[in-house]
Amino acid sequence: MTVLASVERMRAAGRDVISLCAGEPAGGAPALVQARAAALHADAAPLGYSPALGIAPLRAAIAGHCRRWYGLDVQPDDVALTTGASGAFLLAFLAAFEHGDRVALTRPGYPAYRNILASLGCEVVEIGVGPESGFQPTTAALEQAGPLAGLVLASPANPTGSMTSRAELAALAAWCEAHGTRLVSDEIYHGLTYPEPDAPDPRGTCAWELDRSAVVVSSFSKYWGMTGWRLGWALVPRDLRDAVDALAGNLALCPPVPAQHAALAAFDEASYAEADARLAALARTRTLALDGAARLGWGPVAPADGAFYLYAGVPLGRFPDSVAWCRALLEEQGVALVPGVDFDGVGGGAYVRLSFAAGEQAVAQAFDRIAAFQA
Amino acid sequence: MTVLASVERMRAAGRDVISLCAGEPAGGAPALVQARAAALHADAAPLGYSPALGIAPLRAAIAGHCRRWYGLDVQPDDVALTTGASGAFLLAFLAAFEHGDRVALTRPGYPAYRNILASLGCEVVEIGVGPESGFQPTTAALEQAGPLAGLVLASPANPTGSMTSRAELAALAAWCEAHGTRLVSDEIYHGLTYPEPDAPDPRGTCAWELDRSAVVVSSFSKYWGMTGWRLGWALVPRDLRDAVDALAGNLALCPPVPAQHAALAAFDEASYAEADARLAALARTRTLALDGAARLGWGPVAPADGAFYLYAGVPLGRFPDSVAWCRALLEEQGVALVPGVDFDGVGGGAYVRLSFAAGEQAVAQAFDRIAAFQA
Repeated sequence: MTVLASVERMRAAGRDVISLCAGEPAGGAPALVQARAAALHADAAPLGYSPALGIAPLRAAIAGHCRRWYGLDVQPDDVALTTGASGAFLLAFLAAFEHGDRVALTRPGYPAYRNILASLGCEVVEIGVGPESGFQPTTAALEQAGPLAGLVLASPANPTGSMTSRAELAALAAWCEAHGTRLVSDEIYHGLTYPEPDAPDPRGTCAWELDRSAVVVSSFSKYWGMTGWRLGWALVPRDLRDAVDALAGNLALCPPVPAQHAALAAFDEASYAEADARLAALARTRTLALDGAARLGWGPVAPADGAFYLYAGVPLGRFPDSVAWCRALLEEQGVALVPGVDFDGVGGGAYVRLSFAAGEQAVAQAFDRIAAFQA
Repeated sequence: MTVLASVERMRAAGRDVISLCAGEPAGGAPALVQARAAALHADAAPLGYSPALGIAPLRAAIAGHCRRWYGLDVQPDDVALTTGASGAFLLAFLAAFEHGDRVALTRPGYPAYRNILASLGCEVVEIGVGPESGFQPTTAALEQAGPLAGLVLASPANPTGSMTSRAELAALAAWCEAHGTRLVSDEIYHGLTYPEPDAPDPRGTCAWELDRSAVVVSSFSKYWGMTGWRLGWALVPRDLRDAVDALAGNLALCPPVPAQHAALAAFDEASYAEADARLAALARTRTLALDGAARLGWGPVAPADGAFYLYAGVPLGRFPDSVAWCRALLEEQGVALVPGVDFDGVGGGAYVRLSFAAGEQAVAQAFDRIAAFQA
């Protein structure tokens, strides 16, 4: 990405740059997970390969996690450990779709979806979403899209932070079932959510609560901060199980084994508590970012109900688009944001994505600089 | 795999089973690699994502490794770190081939090649190889295969342990160049080789010594025993670099980051020495296995010039094929081998694959039991 390259270059030249580009939480893995990994390697026991779908106790632990967060009855056999959520998407797309299949996803959206799908020969159908539907797709929009083999839905979404309510997700899942469209539900940001007190589904609604034919994709990277460990999982619907079983070993042999053993500690009460404490800090930073955006006249602002992104239109002033705006902001004030065109080739020129995962201090300081830039 | 499931079941029932099925060395990672990983996690520093093609010092270290073993001038930019060799194959196949392309590989061969290629919509062209060509393909065989977009070559090969000489590899590479056929060279077993004293290319011949348009795939899993860490690499020819750059981040984000940092220690002299000491032990076990096979009248026996496999015909006696033979051997004597049909759907019914990675004692004991079985 050109922004990141510029950041590196400027930092190498001694410039003080605040980068609000990263899609990763600042804290890293929970202490118990790190300790488990340290002990494992200190033991120096050869780990070897694991079963292709992951070690049995971790599959069971994820089933337990689904009970804890969603009250779902998930069996260990429903769970496929994968090499990050990336590995789960690849597996899901290969198992569920054929070359030439039409698969829908939202615009703006996470660019890797469309790039993976395109590399597999699927036809990507972009569903434009915006403020009028809370940056999530509607069944009405799907009706306009023509026949669809699949729909990739993300809630919370990257770059918008938008979430589907249970009712919206139910409507989308029912539409998919009625139209023979496979729902692939990206839930990697579940748990990084900012619900009102006593709101239903405070961690996000799991698609399996509504539709067991969906593929649910999740990860240790975001809520638990284990980016870089490359460990994710899928809940695999029964009719895809054989295909996923057959593909998983051939494509990847198995997910990283040290990470699998260490990740068992993610489901310890202390690890949940640590992740939730970080979530509370993220929530404070989110408020600060939303206030900053309002103060600076940004809009439309996507809901930011989850994840750690603020996706908003910016007052372009003298600039033709947000690419130029971001470039000038970086050069003049040393603040790096991602221009919306990385996520939306049509309307993204008016938007930026600001990641508030970098923490309160960085975000507060960045907004001071952006205010000076906009002044 | 059904053999492994049977082994698990029998062990769970208290049976003493010697499994010579595994494609992994027994020793695990070098001590320095484990220590580096332990220190990294004890520090609990958040690692985050790495660049999609891996951390710069590791790319440089692999370039240095190529100089050390092959005298090759490789630049860090030539090296793409991947999530195991599996990740490298996926990347190479997606970057180099189109849907419908015809790609050749040997039969017998590693089944994941054909399964990945088939899942990507390539047409797999099997080149039958046997004792007459040392279980490696010849240009004459390629001439019979029709137009080929690609050739996957493995030296040392799984399941046969066979290797191409430098002259043979040069002939194959020249044929590929003349026919517009992309060579993908699987070199994951390089270094696990059993050359005569003063033989040329004692670690194996790297395809890049002969053809810079080849994709070379290698891994930390075999020579360094880091199976399960999921770390491999590719040497990427210049014309595929942009495609690989674009695909890598989308498909996998990055290879496992803790493993990348730890793997830096694989290039320490002490780690090479440790790996070579294990190789010396493997060489002794190999002799034992070859002697055992000769004593029991097995044949044809593939060369076993590298890797840790013995691929051989077995006297079937009362059995219709080696599947039944292996099943009876497992039930009667508690020795697990892999029947050749897993690697060769045509002639594999006469063959078995015996992995001698389990070590001298296990292999010696297994041959005693097999002798009783054959008696």
